[in-house]
Amino acid sequence: MRVVVAPDSFKGSLSAAQVCAAVAEGVRRAVPGARVTAVPMADGGEGTLDCFRTARAGELVETAATDPLGRPVAARYALSGDGRSAVVELAAASGLPLVADVPPDPLRADTTGTGELIADAVRRGAREVLVAVGGSASTDGGTGLLRALGVRFLDAAGAELPPGGAALARLARIDGSRLPHAVRATRFRVACDVTSPLVGPAGAAAVFGPQKGASPAQVRELDAALTVFADVLAAHSGVRVHDLPGAGAAGGTCGGLVGLLGAEPSPGAPLVAEAVGLPAALDGADLVLTGEGRVDGQSAAGKVVSAVAALAAERGVPCVALAGGVAGPLDELHALGLTAAFSIADGPRDLAGLKAGAAPLLAALAEQAVRLFAR
Amino acid sequence: MRVVVAPDSFKGSLSAAQVCAAVAEGVRRAVPGARVTAVPMADGGEGTLDCFRTARAGELVETAATDPLGRPVAARYALSGDGRSAVVELAAASGLPLVADVPPDPLRADTTGTGELIADAVRRGAREVLVAVGGSASTDGGTGLLRALGVRFLDAAGAELPPGGAALARLARIDGSRLPHAVRATRFRVACDVTSPLVGPAGAAAVFGPQKGASPAQVRELDAALTVFADVLAAHSGVRVHDLPGAGAAGGTCGGLVGLLGAEPSPGAPLVAEAVGLPAALDGADLVLTGEGRVDGQSAAGKVVSAVAALAAERGVPCVALAGGVAGPLDELHALGLTAAFSIADGPRDLAGLKAGAAPLLAALAEQAVRLFAR
Repeated sequence: MRVVVAPDSFKGSLSAAQVCAAVAEGVRRAVPGARVTAVPMADGGEGTLDCFRTARAGELVETAATDPLGRPVAARYALSGDGRSAVVELAAASGLPLVADVPPDPLRADTTGTGELIADAVRRGAREVLVAVGGSASTDGGTGLLRALGVRFLDAAGAELPPGGAALARLARIDGSRLPHAVRATRFRVACDVTSPLVGPAGAAAVFGPQKGASPAQVRELDAALTVFADVLAAHSGVRVHDLPGAGAAGGTCGGLVGLLGAEPSPGAPLVAEAVGLPAALDGADLVLTGEGRVDGQSAAGKVVSAVAALAAERGVPCVALAGGVAGPLDELHALGLTAAFSIADGPRDLAGLKAGAAPLLAALAEQAVRLFAR
Repeated sequence: MRVVVAPDSFKGSLSAAQVCAAVAEGVRRAVPGARVTAVPMADGGEGTLDCFRTARAGELVETAATDPLGRPVAARYALSGDGRSAVVELAAASGLPLVADVPPDPLRADTTGTGELIADAVRRGAREVLVAVGGSASTDGGTGLLRALGVRFLDAAGAELPPGGAALARLARIDGSRLPHAVRATRFRVACDVTSPLVGPAGAAAVFGPQKGASPAQVRELDAALTVFADVLAAHSGVRVHDLPGAGAAGGTCGGLVGLLGAEPSPGAPLVAEAVGLPAALDGADLVLTGEGRVDGQSAAGKVVSAVAALAAERGVPCVALAGGVAGPLDELHALGLTAAFSIADGPRDLAGLKAGAAPLLAALAEQAVRLFAR
């Protein structure tokens, strides 16, 4: 019997690799001869770099970069062992926590640092880059990132704009001619789990601006500037991202990557699944065990459990989720392909007790689930 | 798909019939066309009469009887719809709670009331009587019960002994000649979950006497009296119950029933399973779902889950337990035939929350387990 174990981390309790270890122990208790393939998963957020590095025999590369307000910061991204693929988390160099020490500056904050990490990865040979967005400090449409790769954002006089989203109000022309060939030859994918468009009342500035410190007036200013950006982008590349679902992710970074680098936006978990080789691991498997801290109706929306269930269903592999908590109804997940979901709780326990005992509880539950599967 | 649902009650939360209803709902959600057979179970304790009555289209018969100290009490037993079988709980007429209103009298308390219930059942045609012992107030070797059926316990002068265990010290002869033919023709089985012998340091008086109010001196007195009883019984019937495992149950009632009525002692759950027709229900079933408030290593010792698992295993039917709490290791239960066990807990919950939500949690868990089974 071949069992694939492909869980998310249990946030605040176990990493995805630790979940794999506990589940594998339970599987082997149930079926001593079982072949267990551990594929730790993530959804583009916390843990994504580690999963990718583990799956692709890669390394974490630390490099000098620029934080959202132009200060130096050391940040890391993951490069596959063959050097061909990289995963860059926007939060590493462009995250809101990096500028928590100073008053917010939502008009000027930008994504330059993330572009520097991508440039480093491309320089080392990466031609597939997964950019996991989320947690950004900026609302710059990804212009900082793009500028770090070689794109120029010019005003009517042909001068380069200063950093930040507000300056885009004066954007007149985009010059992509200095974008290196290596960058043009790179396939970019954007892991984003929001569906916000770039502009308007549900856009990047309106929805996420306030949590980055933008006042109502600044939100209006940023939304207007992003609209100019989107207009000029459409004229430049023929790609209209104003209303594109997901384009508003990370202060519009997703929109900029789509418009200028031909990036493909997608929910995080399926992208990570592909990046860590889960589809291939599932071929010929008898069972896949996934899981996360909590499985509920929300899990149907692009999280690890639903992504794994969907891939399993395509291959006719039963998929069982083992979770800290399970909150029904699970109809959507079942429709996606999830066979069943069980909580690790073994009776009355408080949250702290559940977290503290998560590893042995997971092993015990996996044993029971596999026993039922293999009967 | 044919699914048998055969759970114990969830003590303090749901009756076995309520557990069946919740589980059946979950089964049908998982497999809409499933044929569900509900067989509420019990282990010879609380709920046994109801299970038997439900399964055998029977009734609860209330009759006038005598409590452990000779006072009138109304008590009930269960009679099958065809009148051929009865289940009598010793606690109904001879239980310790019935005499909680007066100072304990362990030397004199007896089991007459239980014999009156049995006599009533036999009078109505019952020829199979299951006596569920446990919770007795007496240490009389079942002599009260036997006397109510027609056995005479005589001293050296040929006079009948007064009620109670202490009087057995003067027992010289047993006269079974007035035992009615109907009683002789009746098959008695005793559901007892203890393995205490009748006499000695692990016997009825030593182990259970104190909780019935016996002082150390009274314990010695009762043990000596039961020894006389066992000696005379051996001389009378040729059956030696001194050291018989289980003979000490209910103040030695089990020993008396074995010695004088040829009763067969057995753990409660398997007897109830047979009485409610579970073996026949399991023939041809695809799956059996059992359960109880808590499944643990103790469940291996004659409780409902282990009895159901053993019967299922004999027939090659997978058996899954759904429980309020599951405490490993479950190796013994697995060895008995239990395929798997799951807790209804869906995440962090306290005991009160788990009990309050037991029915919907059971339905949700049953749905998931059957989905995994039927994948």
